This record gives sequence, structure tokens and C-alpha cells, in this order.
Amino acid sequence: MNSFGQIFRISVFGESHGESIGALIDGCPPSLPIAGTDFSLDMARRKPGSVGTTSRVESDEVKIISGVYNGYSTGSPVLLLISNSDAIPADYERIKNLPRPGHSDFVSNAKYRGYADLRGGGHFSGRITAAIVAAGVIAKKVIPDVQIKADLISAGGSSNIQDAVIQALQDGDSVGGIVECRLDNLPVGLGEPFFNSVESLISHIIFAIPAIKGIEFGSGFKAAEMRGSVHNDEILDINGNTATNNSGGINGGITNGNQAVFRVAVKPASSIAKAQHTIDLSTGVKADIRIKGRHDACIALRMPVIIEAAVACVFADLTLLAKAL
Amino acid sequence: MNSFGQIFRISVFGESHGESIGALIDGCPPSLPIAGTDFSLDMARRKPGSVGTTSRVESDEVKIISGVYNGYSTGSPVLLLISNSDAIPADYERIKNLPRPGHSDFVSNAKYRGYADLRGGGHFSGRITAAIVAAGVIAKKVIPDVQIKADLISAGGSSNIQDAVIQALQDGDSVGGIVECRLDNLPVGLGEPFFNSVESLISHIIFAIPAIKGIEFGSGFKAAEMRGSVHNDEILDINGNTATNNSGGINGGITNGNQAVFRVAVKPASSIAKAQHTIDLSTGVKADIRIKGRHDACIALRMPVIIEAAVACVFADLTLLAKAL
Amino acid sequence: MNSFGQIFRISVFGESHGESIGALIDGCPPSLPIAGTDFSLDMARRKPGSVGTTSRVESDEVKIISGVYNGYSTGSPVLLLISNSDAIPADYERIKNLPRPGHSDFVSNAKYRGYADLRGGGHFSGRITAAIVAAGVIAKKVIPDVQIKADLISAGGSSNIQDAVIQALQDGDSVGGIVECRLDNLPVGLGEPFFNSVESLISHIIFAIPAIKGIEFGSGFKAAEMRGSVHNDEILDINGNTATNNSGGINGGITNGNQAVFRVAVKPASSIAKAQHTIDLSTGVKADIRIKGRHDACIALRMPVIIEAAVACVFADLTLLAKAL
Amino acid sequence: MNSFGQIFRISVFGESHGESIGALIDGCPPSLPIAGTDFSLDMARRKPGSVGTTSRVESDEVKIISGVYNGYSTGSPVLLLISNSDAIPADYERIKNLPRPGHSDFVSNAKYRGYADLRGGGHFSGRITAAIVAAGVIAKKVIPDVQIKADLISAGGSSNIQDAVIQALQDGDSVGGIVECRLDNLPVGLGEPFFNSVESLISHIIFAIPAIKGIEFGSGFKAAEMRGSVHNDEILDINGNTATNNSGGINGGITNGNQAVFRVAVKPASSIAKAQHTIDLSTGVKADIRIKGRHDACIALRMPVIIEAAVACVFADLTLLAKAL
Repeated sequence: MNSFGQIFRISVFGESHGESIGALIDGCPPSLPIAGTDFSLDMARRKPGSVGTTSRVESDEVKIISGVYNGYSTGSPVLLLISNSDAIPADYERIKNLPRPGHSDFVSNAKYRGYADLRGGGHFSGRITAAIVAAGVIAKKVIPDVQIKADLISAGGSSNIQDAVIQALQDGDSVGGIVECRLDNLPVGLGEPFFNSVESLISHIIFAIPAIKGIEFGSGFKAAEMRGSVHNDEILDINGNTATNNSGGINGGITNGNQAVFRVAVKPASSIAKAQHTIDLSTGVKADIRIKGRHDACIALRMPVIIEAAVACVFADLTLLAKAL
Repeated sequence: MNSFGQIFRISVFGESHGESIGALIDGCPPSLPIAGTDFSLDMARRKPGSVGTTSRVESDEVKIISGVYNGYSTGSPVLLLISNSDAIPADYERIKNLPRPGHSDFVSNAKYRGYADLRGGGHFSGRITAAIVAAGVIAKKVIPDVQIKADLISAGGSSNIQDAVIQALQDGDSVGGIVECRLDNLPVGLGEPFFNSVESLISHIIFAIPAIKGIEFGSGFKAAEMRGSVHNDEILDINGNTATNNSGGINGGITNGNQAVFRVAVKPASSIAKAQHTIDLSTGVKADIRIKGRHDACIALRMPVIIEAAVACVFADLTLLAKAL
Repeated sequence: MNSFGQIFRISVFGESHGESIGALIDGCPPSLPIAGTDFSLDMARRKPGSVGTTSRVESDEVKIISGVYNGYSTGSPVLLLISNSDAIPADYERIKNLPRPGHSDFVSNAKYRGYADLRGGGHFSGRITAAIVAAGVIAKKVIPDVQIKADLISAGGSSNIQDAVIQALQDGDSVGGIVECRLDNLPVGLGEPFFNSVESLISHIIFAIPAIKGIEFGSGFKAAEMRGSVHNDEILDINGNTATNNSGGINGGITNGNQAVFRVAVKPASSIAKAQHTIDLSTGVKADIRIKGRHDACIALRMPVIIEAAVACVFADLTLLAKAL
Repeated sequence: MNSFGQIFRISVFGESHGESIGALIDGCPPSLPIAGTDFSLDMARRKPGSVGTTSRVESDEVKIISGVYNGYSTGSPVLLLISNSDAIPADYERIKNLPRPGHSDFVSNAKYRGYADLRGGGHFSGRITAAIVAAGVIAKKVIPDVQIKADLISAGGSSNIQDAVIQALQDGDSVGGIVECRLDNLPVGLGEPFFNSVESLISHIIFAIPAIKGIEFGSGFKAAEMRGSVHNDEILDINGNTATNNSGGINGGITNGNQAVFRVAVKPASSIAKAQHTIDLSTGVKADIRIKGRHDACIALRMPVIIEAAVACVFADLTLLAKAL
């Protein structure tokens, strides 16, 4: 289902080329100061504009429909609405029978028995992540003491990110990247054992974001090559500070008070200018497509703020839950 | 909360050295043939016994308390109970104030304000995965046509697994590993957009398993280094078969009919015979511990059946949901 | 939380005098024909206009923001938005410190620590039921074969409803009523044992509607006076048709194929023209209020379509769930 | 699904004549003192024994399997197990094709396609309420300051309860009754607007209990006959105390600090010694049955403690939720 969270629960809706997209937040505590302008910075960080990002430009103004009165959250559900002003559906009509490789076109058409809105990926579009960023702005207000910082640390396997992106652009191609996210000032004890471990919840929401292929916490995949005597983080004091941080700030699924850190692998954008083979679903015959539209050469460039927002939703929820129990 | 699934919903309970552990399954369809002996094979696969696994031996007999009558599921909740016959709590009493590095002792004690059952990790113990394996036996019956196969493909960074484990054992140490899981015969269309993407649900339950540090689907972390023209899987026919499988059988969070594949990184067991530094919580003074008990040198050895069970629960749920919608 | 349903899940949002109210529907199957005009009839039935209903007139046009494409549901979340065009918040500003007897003003102010939007009851307003009626229009499309019919059967204890309402109006007062709802053509087997019994789910959503004081199924409160030999419904044939219907079409929480029937008690509207005593929260001094605004003398008059919509949501969900299991 | 609650979540399992029944409690806070003997009083109150109750005698000892250590809740899931020691399944085998009027036999058999455990009603049995009583013992510990008191106030329409029951017994019949429940010392502000109103949650769990036909809060069905000027409860002071209590201590779905009060209608037990008509499902021919077994002439006699337990679960959950928000 399209919702996430036990207390601070977000739901998303909308399609890439529909009227609007948005998020509904239930379980938002009262008394949070919320103004329409609070969204501008994070929405701008997600926006394209830099080299390697799509030329589709949305104003991305977040309209608060409910749950906020006189500048403060009221405690009732918050609906955030974002218009799709710059939609150009015509770009997509012709590819209805030509599922784009790497995209959701084929599965969406099959799953919904031909009724899906396939324009620009419809509800599967990366456009929906704008709603997550908007919800994240409010989630961050629930946990004002926590610092969350995500950065793109490599693209195309290189830390020289700009070069990798420009090169891909010149080739009519796209390139993947790795985003690292660090959280400071988390208290000890957030997360629930087993199914609602911190890693379970973070990975759940992170893999909701289109184009994510992997996630690792702390030592991550390197842990598979390590010995326990090296991997175990020595506990230094009664506050639980550790000498190393292979745990990524999480033990047994619960925050241990050290910096939380995880990395995600972002695939190269599936929409590329280069010609690709696919199949014409109406005839079963092989066909070539070049995806014109307006696309990102490196979607990973726009991921940091989305990942911050997603993880803020997780910790807003866990923080409220910890107050209950 | 300690449950997972929208329709086929599993909950787990119990502590490492409590009376019993187990799983409660809600939303189990009627008419599944279920016998007590059905659990033996998978429970045995999870059991220690081979080189590098703990000497704690549990009979691991799964007792069906409810929801099965005359050899078939009835449609009402299924409670599975597994006794802890070989518990030796005394091993653990002395380390109450000495949190073991890499373990949940410190966070569990803090989170539950001193009331947690810390014996053997309590509810955070890997012992709880026996309940997942038991639930997985039933989940597999919900999706009889799907083949699920997980294998340990490396340990300590080497594909020569036995050597890596024996070496670690001899050193009083432990070693990590990588498990790969492949699913065949999945239909097109399982999974839900955004929050309940297949990757979201699989990663959610996989990270519930203690000791998992990372997960990647299809091309995984390598995708971050790739170009879109290479990463996109060419669609070959109207059934959606693709030439390559970088997607790992999933597009837009939905199964695409190709083999689903993911890999998980398992950390080295935190319990090792070697001396380690920690802190005495009662005095704040540094202390050395050697963890005697009975432990695994390579917990990854026992992971494949657990991972199969976990992913079976995901697809049992998604399969039922797909029937509804 | 502000959502209801396991598969067909509705959430509501908005305040009486906010910008808009609405409903978000998750788990809506694809292929349902949905047009903007489909909402007109039921929205009109809920609208005031007849004698005894408020003079506040809203166009109550339902705007479909997402989840519908080319006239059919797509399978992705459906957002329905209804503007508050005729809001006159000024009516309410002055009673901020004067909680209206029978209203949520006092509890809402206390619960949300002074941050609630109290205008017209805010999120507690009966206005929110317009969102339920809109969602109900879609729910009814999920169960096209089920006939749902609710009627006001008495007001002020009399079946001469019009007289009771006119009399109350003339007295600057309001009056309660009883609504009966009957469902035909329900299949045998909807509902789940124990917590999700049909009565549990219906009563849950019915008591979400403001002003409901009681609910009874079949024989209802009369059952408390009856003998089992009279109350038991004789089963007449292998389809489960019964000679009497004291069960109200439900046994063990599951539909039995007979007509489902329940009645709800609706209290008299709390907003009345007559002077009432209350307390001034800022001073603690007794005060008199006359509620001007625009109010209903008999809210029960507008209830039938709301109750139909609510119960349609229950059976849409249970019908989808029955397909899954 | 067989669970209830957002934070303090209970699930139930088991069949009337299975091995055991029980409850799983998730979201139980740590530090609650819990001993095996704590259950005795409430379990005894639910037990039959007095005139008019079944002669089936269960020891009803509640075994704590998990979540409690050294006499206190640990914060991990609590599993409570109750054996079915006095089951006599043979009583029921012969009525497999003869659905008992008023019972779930017919719907249970149909819903689960012949796989249901029909012995004694299986999972639909009133026996399952023993699990609710056990869970309620723990729920009451979460809200130690709240007084909950339920009483049978009439049977067969008369307040002379004993006579009504004895008369029914002598006639080989059964009789219904009304239970009233009052809660004191509830704080202002529990409950959530709309779907999780206090009335929604209480009625949800109350209708999960077999044999309940109606529920009303405060003025209840009488409200339908009343005028607003009479029904509105005058607010007397800044703490929200009211002169009358037609609201039943709840406004807008939220507790208002006054005594909460509701009444439930309990039908006469369906199992009676008198001959009844039914249909033989195997032949379609009319048949007579006399239900021997061991049954209650007035199940309402045993309801008060069950209703207290159920409502305790609601307020335990709402109390924890209020701490979060």
C-alpha cells in the first residue's frame, strides 16, 4: 500500500503527467511551525537545473491544503499538493506499445491490465519523489535535533563526478552513482527489534525511491570479507561511543548513539538519447527507440535531498514511537 | 512492531533463553496441507552442526498450536511454537554489565530501561530466525510454483568458503559472507508502486534478520558505475523476457517475469573467543571479555534457509494481494 | 489514525473552513469506470437544502486529482478533492474561548494544546463526511452487485419526521433520529473472525461519523430481552436462507447471505439557536451562547447517504480481501 | 485480520477444541510488573460456574511464554497461552452437516471452503474471549489510574436477573442481557478524530466478542428522541466537567474527562437444549437438533469481565498514542 510509518504516516499519490502529485501526512504532532516557504530550499535542491539533469522545470510550489492553521501544525492530517505545471504528455503517447528498457512501462501495463497511466511512468515516476521531499520537510521538524546529511560521493565509479556526468551527456547516455547519508545526534534506542529494525525501515523507504539498486549500513558489503575481531566496534564509554563504526550506528536494529551511516547505489537513468532495442507489444516485432523527452543523465545528482527526506520520515516516526513506549 | 505483511502477516515472539519462541501467521489461506513433519527439512538446514556453527543443539521441533485441522490450514491464525530446550542462561548472567561489542546488549538495556531480557540477546537473538524459517515453510506452500534458492557464495571475501571458516575458527575468530538468492517462476506484476515495491518489502524483512549489513538487487552496487545504455535490459519478447538481468527481475518495484536475484552481506558473528575490550557499565571502567558460550564462526553458513523463508513470506503476501486487486 | 481498510483503504483530511477537504483511496482496483459526474447524485443527497438543514451551500464538486485516467481507475491511489467555497470562518472566531456544549471544541483545544483549527469544528466537523460520501461513490463501484439502502425511519422518536423537524426548527432547537440501513445481495462469507467481524468494521466506520450515539444489528437491543429459541434464525435451505433475520444477516461476524440490516441512533445537532450555558475558558466564568452560524435542525436527515457510503467502503474492502483468501 | 491496536496491539489465536488458545501482545511497554497469578481473578470472573453458565470447566491458567523476565515486562512481544484441557470434541462431530441456528457453523464452513475447524465453533467460539481477558489483565496495567467497571444490568428485559436466568434454564432455553460499562479517571484528549474515535475503537473490539448485537454511548438510542437543548451537556468549569452526561464522556470521538459510559446488548446463547429446526447440508432435508454439550443459559452473565478487558485494550493503546503525539 502507498503509505509508510506507524505513527507519523505518509501516503503519496499522483502521476508524472496528471494534475498534481502530493503527500498526506497522518500522525503529525501539533505545534510544529510550518510555512509555505519552508519547502523552498529542499524542493530546489531536488529540482533539476544543473548539468546532467532534465530540462523539465516545475515550480514545485508546495500548497498546504490541511492540517496547518495560523502557521502551526494542528495535529490533524496534513495534505501537501504540488502541481504538474510543465507536463508534456505528448512526448510519451507514442511509446505506449514500446516499453522502454529499464522502465516500469511493461510491468505497469501488465499489472494494471492496460488501465495504468503510462505517461512519463505515471505513478511510478521519479516525479513522485517531490512529494517525499515535501513530507521530509515536515518530518525534519519533528526531529529538529537530528542532523541529516546526504552526499553524492561517486558517479560512474569515479569520485570526479562532474566529468563522469558531462561525458555521459556527450554520449547521449546516463551514469549511476553512490549516495552516502550520515545522521548525527540520534539518541540511543530508536528502532524496534526484528521487523522494525532501523535498517528495515530505512531500506524499505529508500527502495521505494525509483532507481535504487542497493543499500549498505556501516561496513556494508565489506563486512562480508571481515573478521569479527576487526568488525566489532569497541565500546569506549558508558554512553556507548565506539572506537570504530562498522555497525553504522545501529546494533540489533536499534540506534546506538554513534553516527548512523548508510550508502545507496543509484542506477543510471533508464531514459537515454541513444537508440535502444525493445519490443512492440502490439506486433511482437523488435523495434528501436530513442527517448527524446527531457531526462537526467545522472539521477543520482538529485538523490541526496530525497534520501534525507526519506530517512527523516523514518526517524520522525521512530522518535514518536519511542515517546509512546 | 513485530509483524510483517498486509494479508499474509507474520509476527514473531520469544527470547533466546526463554521458554519458547515462535511465529503467529494471520491471513493464511485455508486448504494448505500442513503436517508437523513439513518443517523438519528447513529447520534442519538452519540448525548448526557443520564446522563453524555453534554447538548449541535444539531439537527445533515446530509445534502447531492453532489454525490447522485434519492436516490442512483452516483459514484461522496459525501459531507455531518452538521450545528452547538447550538454553544455558548461566553463560550470560555475568556479562550483564559488560555489553558485548557488536551485540545488541548495550542498546537493548538502554532502550528498555534495564528491563530487557539480555540472556543470549533475548528477543534480539538470531534464535528468533528459527520462527521465520518455520513461517517460511508455510509461506512456501502459498506459492508452490515459485522456486526460491539461496546460497552462500563467499566467506571472508573468498569463494573457498570452508577454508575461510576453518581458518577463522582456529583463530578464535569469526568471518562474514555473502548470500545470493534467486527466485524463478515469479509471475509479472507482483509488488506495489512506491512504498511496497518488491525491493522495499524484501529488504525490510531481510534487515530484520540479525547480522545483515547490505542488500543489492540485480546489478546492485555495480549499477553505480555503469552507463544506462549498458544497464538497461533489452526486452526480447511480449512476455517481457530480457537479454540481460541488471534489473534483478524487478522494474519500478514490480516483478517483470525474469529471474529475481539479490545478494546480502552478512557480517562476521559478534561472539568470538578472542579477547575484546568493552566497558563495565556499572563502573565505567574498561574491561576485557572472552565470550565463551557456544557460537558460530560463520553465521552466513546458516543464512540461506532463513533468507529463503523471509523472501517466501514477502511473495506469499504479494501473491495474495495480487489476487485481491 | 485517519485511515480505514485493509486493502481498499481510505484516508480523510481537511477542516470545515480550510481550503479543501477530501479523501485518499489506496488499494482501488484498476478498470473501474469513474467520471467526475458520478459523484453528483450522492453529493447532492448529502447536501443541505431541505427543511431542517443548514443554509451553508457548497458546490461540493469532487475533483479527481490522481488515480483515474481516460475515464477508468488506474490502480494507483485516487485523491478526491472538494473545495470549501462557502466557508464563513468569522462566525466562529468569537467562540474560541466559549466551547459549545455537545461539540468537540473543548476536547480539540485541549488535545492539541491550543493548536487545533477550531473554526466550525475544524477536522472534527461533519463537513468531513462529504469526503466519505465521495469515497463511497468509488467503493460502490467495487461492489456493483450489492444494493445498499439507508433511510431515516424516525426523528424525535416519531415516524412523522417532517413534523418533528419543523417543530424543532420553530423552537430554535434540533432533534435526533434513527437511520436504518439494509444491504441486499451480499455473498456468504464476507468478514473475518474476531477483530474484523462485519459488525466490528461497520461500527468502526459508522462511529467515525460525527453525532452517532448507537448502532445495533438485526434484533439489536431487543435481543437482550429475547429467548434463544425465539432469537435463533431457522435455516431453511442449503444456501443458508433463514426464516427470521434476528442475526441481521451476520453470524459469527460473517455475512450469511441474508439481508444485512443495522440501525444507528443520531443525536440532535449540537448547534442550536437557543441560548445555552457554557464556560469562558479564559476566565472560568459562566457564559451564555447562542450559536448563529448556519446549522441543521436534524442532521439525521442528511445521514442516509453518508451511512451508505461508509458501509460501502467496508464491503469494498471485505470483497477484495475475500478474493485474496 | 486478527489483530487490534496501533501501538499496544493484540492478536488472538486458537480454536474451541484445539490444543491451546491465546493472545500475542505487541507494543507492551517495559517495566510493568506481571506475574502468572495476576490473571487468576479476571480469568475466574469469566469462568462459568454460577447458575446459568456452562459446566465446561477449564483451569484457564495463563502461561506467559515470552516478553516477561524477572517479573516485569521487557518491552518485547508477550505471548500468553491458555490450554484447552476440558475439550470434548466428540459432542460436536455429529453436527458437521447440521449447522446450528444462530451459530457460525454455516458461514464458517462456506467461507473456508470446508476446511474450517467447526468443533465447538472453532476459532469463532466464545472460548477465544479468554484470550481477551488475559490480554486485558496486561492492558489494565498500562493504565493503572483508570477505573473500569462493567455490570450486567438486565437479563431478558428484567433487572431481576437471577429469576430470568433460572426460568430460561428450566425451559431448556437461553436469555439475553444488557451490560453497562463505566470508566472513571480518564484524562481529557484520548482518541483520534474520525476513524479512530473512541466510539469507533470501543465498538470495533466489542463487536469482536461473539453474541453482541448493539452498543450505545451515553444517551445512546434515546438521543434519537431528544432535542439538542436537552441533549447538550452544559460545561461547568474549565476542566470540562458537565452537568449531564449524554455525551457518555466523549465529544468528537475524544474523551472529555467525564465518566465514559456505554451499554451493550448481548443476545441469548444460540446453543439451547430445546429442539430446533435446521437443514442437513448433505441432503438439503429439514432436520431437528437438540444441542446437548455444555452451554450457557445466559452468556451475558460472563460478559462484564470480557468487556472490561476489551475496553482496557483500547485505552491502553490510546494512552500510549497520546504520549507519542
